[in-house]
This record gives sequence, structure tokens and C-alpha cells, in this order.
Amino acid sequence: MPSFNPLDPAFEQRIRDSFQQQTIIKTLGASLTKIEPGLTVIELGHGSHLAQQHGFIHAGVITTIADSSCGYAAYSLMPAQSEVLTVEFKANFTAPAQGDRFEAIGKVVKPGRTLTVCTAEVIAYDKDRAKTIFIMQATMMCVPTKS
Amino acid sequence: MPSFNPLDPAFEQRIRDSFQQQTIIKTLGASLTKIEPGLTVIELGHGSHLAQQHGFIHAGVITTIADSSCGYAAYSLMPAQSEVLTVEFKANFTAPAQGDRFEAIGKVVKPGRTLTVCTAEVIAYDKDRAKTIFIMQATMMCVPTKS
Amino acid sequence: MPSFNPLDPAFEQRIRDSFQQQTIIKTLGASLTKIEPGLTVIELGHGSHLAQQHGFIHAGVITTIADSSCGYAAYSLMPAQSEVLTVEFKANFTAPAQGDRFEAIGKVVKPGRTLTVCTAEVIAYDKDRAKTIFIMQATMMCVPTKS
Amino acid sequence: MPSFNPLDPAFEQRIRDSFQQQTIIKTLGASLTKIEPGLTVIELGHGSHLAQQHGFIHAGVITTIADSSCGYAAYSLMPAQSEVLTVEFKANFTAPAQGDRFEAIGKVVKPGRTLTVCTAEVIAYDKDRAKTIFIMQATMMCVPTKS
Repeated sequence: MPSFNPLDPAFEQRIRDSFQQQTIIKTLGASLTKIEPGLTVIELGHGSHLAQQHGFIHAGVITTIADSSCGYAAYSLMPAQSEVLTVEFKANFTAPAQGDRFEAIGKVVKPGRTLTVCTAEVIAYDKDRAKTIFIMQATMMCVPTKS
Repeated sequence: MPSFNPLDPAFEQRIRDSFQQQTIIKTLGASLTKIEPGLTVIELGHGSHLAQQHGFIHAGVITTIADSSCGYAAYSLMPAQSEVLTVEFKANFTAPAQGDRFEAIGKVVKPGRTLTVCTAEVIAYDKDRAKTIFIMQATMMCVPTKS
Repeated sequence: MPSFNPLDPAFEQRIRDSFQQQTIIKTLGASLTKIEPGLTVIELGHGSHLAQQHGFIHAGVITTIADSSCGYAAYSLMPAQSEVLTVEFKANFTAPAQGDRFEAIGKVVKPGRTLTVCTAEVIAYDKDRAKTIFIMQATMMCVPTKS
Repeated sequence: MPSFNPLDPAFEQRIRDSFQQQTIIKTLGASLTKIEPGLTVIELGHGSHLAQQHGFIHAGVITTIADSSCGYAAYSLMPAQSEVLTVEFKANFTAPAQGDRFEAIGKVVKPGRTLTVCTAEVIAYDKDRAKTIFIMQATMMCVPTKS
């Protein structure tokens, strides 16, 4: 993975503040466990309120944490006076979302002034076993804000 | 839109039963408002527990209802002894998820014995105004079950 | 389909000029058969030099005409002093590319100052039969040029 | 990258035979430069017959070699009596396709009896500089053939 130089030295706090405002995150019970320039990790437990019809975590829930991990990975490299928006993403589900714990790892592939391309991987932890259950490619947009 | 002949005359009940088992749907507060061969509609109100950092509905939540609308559209054409799984999807966000009410319309484009290709559109209703905020292309898989 | 008002009244000529410069188009033997605000159609015959291993037209060739049909649909709504670039696309292949003639129909779903979201469909004509073999969702970018 | 055990010890020859039958490959001037279990590399020079309107290699051409690199990566793990088909893919263009030489590296992420999920990356070589210009996520399907 390439190393990136953040434009805003306070990027970590800016991401934590934004993450705190996402009410969906409390609803899901997710947490932000790692923030680096161009990378964030979001963790989720197996909530019984998040299931699809077979008791696995719903595809949309896995997508939610993966989308957020990409968005914040991109946001880590954006300037202080900016917001991040999801332009689009694509996801492949490579195994059912079965496990005690899920980790979405979002990474910047190509940062840009307007658009940033990211990938994410979601790993399911089932007792002692780790398994990649999901991969994503996403485009995030930087929206400048007034100071 | 082409018209489809369902293999299972009881497809509507089969879909309602499956939908009922999705605990995430209760968590979001969504409901299934239309079921036809090759088409389903899922509706969602603006829940304050579903927001991203700007107060709009999170991209992942919109994706969740769109994914389910595609999955059940595909499932309507599958045989009685089967389950439906999401293989992959791709989503474009064409406007922020702002509104009182959101409608995900999932349609089958090409049914198949194993794979079914679908599209979904999500419409946001903001007072009197309707706006397409999201489009999706998805692949669903039929998994035969034992009787 | 919504109707769009082009910013540049000379959009048709601008598209024809750009299309003429694409050497790949001559290599494939494709032609631009329709240009409207927010819509273009590109046609391709079955060239024996365009096949994959089973004699069907290669997925990448179908993608090439679909990508161009989206790009020019988007470009029709862009200002006179601009270029169009493909940001990303996603394609589903719903049937083998078998036929005498292929038509890629690219349409704008959501125009924007910077990003324009499009969809495309490719129809294969096999003797008297028309069949959708491909659907695409794409994001195009407007790059302003100096006058 | 995980290591894979091919089901067919003659996978390399099977891939070379299939590749030879792709007439599009001769049209583009591409070649297969690496075959390993779960990975193939396809190389392309800058042909003046492959350009879009700005003289860069057309997005569809880059997609063609990337799609083939994914298809053959998947095919390397499929049984002897089988064919491979592209179900769908999604591509992000991270830089213009500018360079003397392009390398598409296709890799299997998750093999399966029916569906195999792959990723590809295309690297442009411009004199001494290598740059990732494209990333792809793709789903390939195994179609059993009669012996």
C-alpha cells in the first residue's frame, strides 16, 4: 500500500467528529477502530437486529460499514474545510456474513482533488477463523465547505 | 418492462414470509408495499436513527432497501424450493437521500435458472416532490433447497 | 426518459468531431447512428476480428461501444469548451454477444456540472430477433478546456 | 495473495489454446505474458488504432485486456471440461491510459464451483515510470462442457 501525506494534520479528529454524527452507526453498533492516512477500519459485532432472512448479517449492513470505511479513508486525505460524499460503489459478496465480528478495511487507491478511488474488504471472524466475505470498489467526492 | 410468468404461484406469500424474517427491516422501519412477478417495492420513512453525518439517510441504508427490492424481485420468479442470495451489486448516488419517504423499486431485467440480473431505482419524496436519488444494477443467485 | 436542454446548440457537430478522432472506432467498424440531447446510439456489425474464444463478440468490444454511447450521451449536455472522461462503469452481460448487428444505446440519467450518471443497453439483432445482451451504469466527468 | 491448487494440471495449455482463438487479441496486438494458478498477465503496446479522441488508449480496450486477464485467472482454476464466461465487471479509471506499454494483472479473489470473483489492475509504463491507471472487480462463471 502506498503511503499518503494528509493535507490536514487534524484529520483524525475531523473523522472522529464526523463518525460521531452518524446515527446509523449507533443503530448498527459499529465502531471506528483504526484511522491512518488513506485507511480506516470499522468494526461491527453480530447484532440480532441486523439479519436477513437466514440469520446472516444483511448485505446492506456489510455495505454500510464498508462504504463508511472507504468514505473516511478518502476523507483522511481531504483538506480541513471539506465534506465527503459517496459517488458510487460496487460490491461482491464472496461468502455469507456469518461470524461474531466483522471488520471493514477501507483504503485509498488513488486520491484526487475532486474524486478519490477506494477499495474495501470485509473480514468475518468466526471464533478463531478469519474469512474475507466482501470486496468493494468505490468513488468518493470532496465537497469544499466555507470556513 | 417485460412480463414474467412466476414458476411458483405462491410467490407472494413466499416473499412476505422471507421479508418478515429480516430483522434489519424492522430495525430500519421499512415495509414491502408491492409484489408482482419480477418487481417489488420497499418503502422507508426518514428515521433519525438512519442518518449519516449530514442528517441525510446513510448510503448504506438506501442500498439495503434497494438490495432487498432486487433480491425479492428475483425471488418472485424462482421456484418454490429455493433461496435467494446477493452475488454483487453496483450503486450510483445521484442526489443526497433527503426526504420524508423513500421508495426502492427493484425489477428483474433478465431471469435465469442460476443468476438473475436486476435493476433498482430509489425515489425520494420530499413533501410534494419526487426525485430519483439512486440507481443499482445487481446479480442475484438462486440456491435450491431440499423440500 | 426525461428531456434535456443542451447547453451547447452545436452539440451534435461537437460529438461527431470527437467520434471521428477515435481510431478504435474505425478498428471496430462502429458508427454513430443517433445523437439527441442526453442520448446517443452506436452501431456495430459482427466483425470476425472482434471475437472471443467461442466466436461471440468479446465482452470488451461490447463494453467499448457502450462506454462510448454513455460518454457521448453525457457530452451532449456539456458546455462547448469541455472534454468528457470515463470515471467508472459497471456492466452485466445478460446473454452471449451473438448476432449480425449490435446497438449500444447510451442515456443520461442525471446530468451534473462535474459528474454525469448514465446507463447503456446493448441490443443484439440476430436475423429478425432483438435481444438485450448487456446493461451498464457509468459515471462520466466533464473537464473544462480553454477556449 | 492466497495460493491456489488447479484442478486441471494442463491449465496453462488450456488457457493458451483459448487465448489463441480470441481474434480480438490479434486485432489489439495483446499477448499473454504470465499464467499461474489464479493469476494471468496480458500485455498491450500503444497501438495508434486503439485510441479515443485524445490519443489515449480507449477505456474499452483497457477493459478488454483486464476482462481477459480476469477470465483466464478464473479459468486456470476451473476443471478441464469447462468454459469461462464473464458475468459482470466494474472498472474505475484512475488515470488516462497514456504510455508505451500496458499490463493487465488479473487475480482470483474467491474461486467457486459456479462463480469466481476476480480483481484486475492495469499498469501503464511510460518510459521509466509505472502507474496504476485502472482497477476492476469481476465475476466469472464456469460452464461445464461435455467431453
